[in-house]
Amino acid sequence: MDKTLVIGANGQIGKQLIGLMALAKMPVRAMIRTQEQAQDMEKLGAEIYLADLEQPLPDEAFVDCDKVVFTAGSGGKTGADKTILVDLWGAVKAVDMAKKHDIKQFVMVSSRDAGDPENGSAAIKHYNICKHFADKHLLESGVPHTILRPGRLTNEAATGLICTRRPDSKDDQVITRADVAACIVQCLDHSEAINQVDEIYQGDMPIAEAFIKAVRGRLG
Amino acid sequence: MDKTLVIGANGQIGKQLIGLMALAKMPVRAMIRTQEQAQDMEKLGAEIYLADLEQPLPDEAFVDCDKVVFTAGSGGKTGADKTILVDLWGAVKAVDMAKKHDIKQFVMVSSRDAGDPENGSAAIKHYNICKHFADKHLLESGVPHTILRPGRLTNEAATGLICTRRPDSKDDQVITRADVAACIVQCLDHSEAINQVDEIYQGDMPIAEAFIKAVRGRLG
Repeated sequence: MDKTLVIGANGQIGKQLIGLMALAKMPVRAMIRTQEQAQDMEKLGAEIYLADLEQPLPDEAFVDCDKVVFTAGSGGKTGADKTILVDLWGAVKAVDMAKKHDIKQFVMVSSRDAGDPENGSAAIKHYNICKHFADKHLLESGVPHTILRPGRLTNEAATGLICTRRPDSKDDQVITRADVAACIVQCLDHSEAINQVDEIYQGDMPIAEAFIKAVRGRLG
Repeated sequence: MDKTLVIGANGQIGKQLIGLMALAKMPVRAMIRTQEQAQDMEKLGAEIYLADLEQPLPDEAFVDCDKVVFTAGSGGKTGADKTILVDLWGAVKAVDMAKKHDIKQFVMVSSRDAGDPENGSAAIKHYNICKHFADKHLLESGVPHTILRPGRLTNEAATGLICTRRPDSKDDQVITRADVAACIVQCLDHSEAINQVDEIYQGDMPIAEAFIKAVRGRLG
């Protein structure tokens, strides 16, 4: 069974992802920064790899992995310099390593307006610009990609229901982190998700169905 | 005679550039943010165009211009969010407009380590990453480019002498802003500078000669 390297495993989406992957018995290597973050993940059966995304990434982290999930982010509390160093440059380094190690799927957790930062929220435009260039680097790398562009993230409980078409109202352009984690599991588990880019929001369609509909919709 | 749009004309390099271009009777349109910045430039014969690089760039700014110099920068005093919005995204928008308007030379004032941020100064790594992606966008745009990558900038008087090979000692990897302005004039004035990328430092060769040597060196 494919083993997945999860970069940003200790993040708010990352932790829930590790839990869901344990449940689904999907082999996972969790990249985290410190040993203190390891305990719960080890209980969930995750292999631990300690690394700092601000440093050069070691080959070792990628060896024997088939897939990569990038769900690291510097978060809203640090400065924009960290947004550049982690969300953009960390992602670029991860994509380069994925290419080097012939990774067969790279799932990028991106942002709603990463495709068009100019027309997104002014307050987080600098963040969307960084995500824009991270996504672009993945798209141009040749590494099989799945780019997920969630709306504004919330901490509500999972609903299992999403839509991939942007709701008209800004207020509806939200999604729970729990549902984003579930979307990642869905995409890791289905080859139809390869080379797809989807926005994801709260909705009324089961996750699996929503992705299948999105892909088939693009095929016409 | 070609008219050049200078973006960032009120910056520390930009102002000196406008002076040198006036001296050389090179037609110039100075893009600046506020009317208060205009007076000296108008005395120097520059046409003024008021625009804010954080807003969408108007076509009007580029109409009737043959060349573009991008020497805008948010500077070290503002946050890294402005580095993203101005140094990276502002440059990307300028390149896109240059392409749209068939600009025949785009001179980008970049940074010594923009080519390889990973091995540059840790203190300004986030800045070099932004310059990296701005340069990359220009290189991939198809717009005829000249990318100048100066060492650490100083406010000393011009020397007229540079080198394009990186000095071994970090202490020697410097150049005056005045000399950078002169390098821009040189590159605008000579078609050999088209599609070249050069680092520039203080040195012992007259500017014109240094660039000719660099280009010929690459031709073998």
